[in-house]
Amino acid sequence: MTAGALMAADIAAQPDVIAGILRRADAVTSVAAEIAARKPRFILFAARGTSDHAALYAKYLVEIDLALPAGLASPSSVTVFDARPQLADVLLIAVSQSGGSPDLVRYTEVARRQGATTVAVTNTPASALGEAAEFALDIGAGTEAAVAATKTYTAQLTTLLLLIRGMRDGQQPVGLDELPDAVSEVLNVDVAQLAARYRFASRLVVTGRGFAFPTALEAALKVMETSYLPAQAFSGADLLHGPVAMADPGLPVIGITGPGPGGSAMTVVLDKLAERGADVVTLGPAVPGFSPNVVVPNLDERLRPIVDIVPLQLLARQVALSRGTDPDRPRGLAKLTETL
Amino acid sequence: MTAGALMAADIAAQPDVIAGILRRADAVTSVAAEIAARKPRFILFAARGTSDHAALYAKYLVEIDLALPAGLASPSSVTVFDARPQLADVLLIAVSQSGGSPDLVRYTEVARRQGATTVAVTNTPASALGEAAEFALDIGAGTEAAVAATKTYTAQLTTLLLLIRGMRDGQQPVGLDELPDAVSEVLNVDVAQLAARYRFASRLVVTGRGFAFPTALEAALKVMETSYLPAQAFSGADLLHGPVAMADPGLPVIGITGPGPGGSAMTVVLDKLAERGADVVTLGPAVPGFSPNVVVPNLDERLRPIVDIVPLQLLARQVALSRGTDPDRPRGLAKLTETL
Repeated sequence: MTAGALMAADIAAQPDVIAGILRRADAVTSVAAEIAARKPRFILFAARGTSDHAALYAKYLVEIDLALPAGLASPSSVTVFDARPQLADVLLIAVSQSGGSPDLVRYTEVARRQGATTVAVTNTPASALGEAAEFALDIGAGTEAAVAATKTYTAQLTTLLLLIRGMRDGQQPVGLDELPDAVSEVLNVDVAQLAARYRFASRLVVTGRGFAFPTALEAALKVMETSYLPAQAFSGADLLHGPVAMADPGLPVIGITGPGPGGSAMTVVLDKLAERGADVVTLGPAVPGFSPNVVVPNLDERLRPIVDIVPLQLLARQVALSRGTDPDRPRGLAKLTETL
Repeated sequence: MTAGALMAADIAAQPDVIAGILRRADAVTSVAAEIAARKPRFILFAARGTSDHAALYAKYLVEIDLALPAGLASPSSVTVFDARPQLADVLLIAVSQSGGSPDLVRYTEVARRQGATTVAVTNTPASALGEAAEFALDIGAGTEAAVAATKTYTAQLTTLLLLIRGMRDGQQPVGLDELPDAVSEVLNVDVAQLAARYRFASRLVVTGRGFAFPTALEAALKVMETSYLPAQAFSGADLLHGPVAMADPGLPVIGITGPGPGGSAMTVVLDKLAERGADVVTLGPAVPGFSPNVVVPNLDERLRPIVDIVPLQLLARQVALSRGTDPDRPRGLAKLTETL
């Protein structure tokens, strides 16, 4: 098998996977309606790794579109420290590709017993997590062949979008139906030059604000998993509260831009990085004064994460290959990670 | 002024600052009692940078010791995306040294109007944030001379501990009174050898679980701010879900250990890192098979963060000096960071 072939196939499958989720949207929106009828007042997420980035995306959706308080639960509070939280009126959304990590299963079991409405969002509904939760939503991404998650990530994002917006009024962002085509389009982004740029980089920073912050986190994780390059993600605001001191002409940065509120709030961040001479590559609609730029379709900020991550997945894979590592077989990782 | 003199003075002041907070504990516990009487059901935190790490520590305290759901709010949901969240029964704790960052002030104003009980934990109670919140707690750390936060961080941790435990039953962890002495003791940790070890490092990973995770995040931030070395922090569990692939003999790791639940849960993480040949230095009670080890007093895991960060502050300062940068004057940073 050619190195990187599995990851390439997973990445290429994304338009079809997303189209499938949209076709089966009713299954998600009927669960959403049932949950909304219970009027949850606080929404918690439990997840690890890539799924945690999908959960963070959904947390922004909850805070912005449902106007409810939300948090990423620390599973260890229950599994390591034996807390039994008071979870009446709480909706717990557990996100996991495998549905098999013991800490998430245990957290979900306890949350359900403690009064929370529980939903598992997983690629394996017949898993321990799917059984532990009251509701199980199948992201239907099919078997993911590579270790690094790609199509299961965008499938989680799409499913969570349908779920959260379904809990509001079911009205989806303008452009939802164009998602599969938009993802097909960015599959054609030529990342060769950018991969060459980072061939000898010893670090990488990715930054975005609001809905784009999870994209930054997930891109950094893909790069770490496949290329073993230390990649850091910061929300644009947090970057200014300290880490920006690292910025100099030796620091490669990928900044996610856009005309929406989150993208606009990035302007001051990009200017500060440029002022300090950092090597800034933007992803989004081109920004005057910044090049190179990875062009992606200009969609609602809620949809952008599902599209934007794709060229960054391609980039992570290409950087790994250019460094002589096989992105399909990250050392020290397995498809199912079990943490307690 | 000698390079690093300001940061050294701030670090050295910590035993006195903490002793002062303990002497004035009644001011915090009376606010805690007043808040507890309102029976908040969900606790949100708003903070940036170092203060966000103090908030994360307090989030673990809430989840474990109050057994309530908690979350770190995304201020941008309100300040950038104009959400107006439903916050009845919510306690918002805003944490900020300066009390001046416009996004935190705005988030707190909106949260109060939306029905939340609001508390500001700040070193500047007469600040915009102190005025915006219903309750303002003074961490009383005095003027912090260096840009990188040190004594204000441990003062935030101590104040948040008094507040959260005060909301429970006022009973504090065993050993609280020994804190100033424990901090004095670790001020004597000789970090010269460890700083020499990282003199030419191009990256650093810091990891811990539970209450030790905020320590990892704060240590990484101190190193980034003062030495411009890309430093990454991972919870032990999340490290296994991807980033561990980076581990090889070229990866320097600081792992926070201990005999409590969080420390015990780190054993599998350290073993995995060792298996992959990573250069693991531990901080805490010595672990068989791992050396060197930075010895710190063996306190309750809730108190350890207030002590453990101190040798890591000393280390960040020393690494910066050994690299010829002045930790008192991080490039591109100001004491008050204003984000929107």
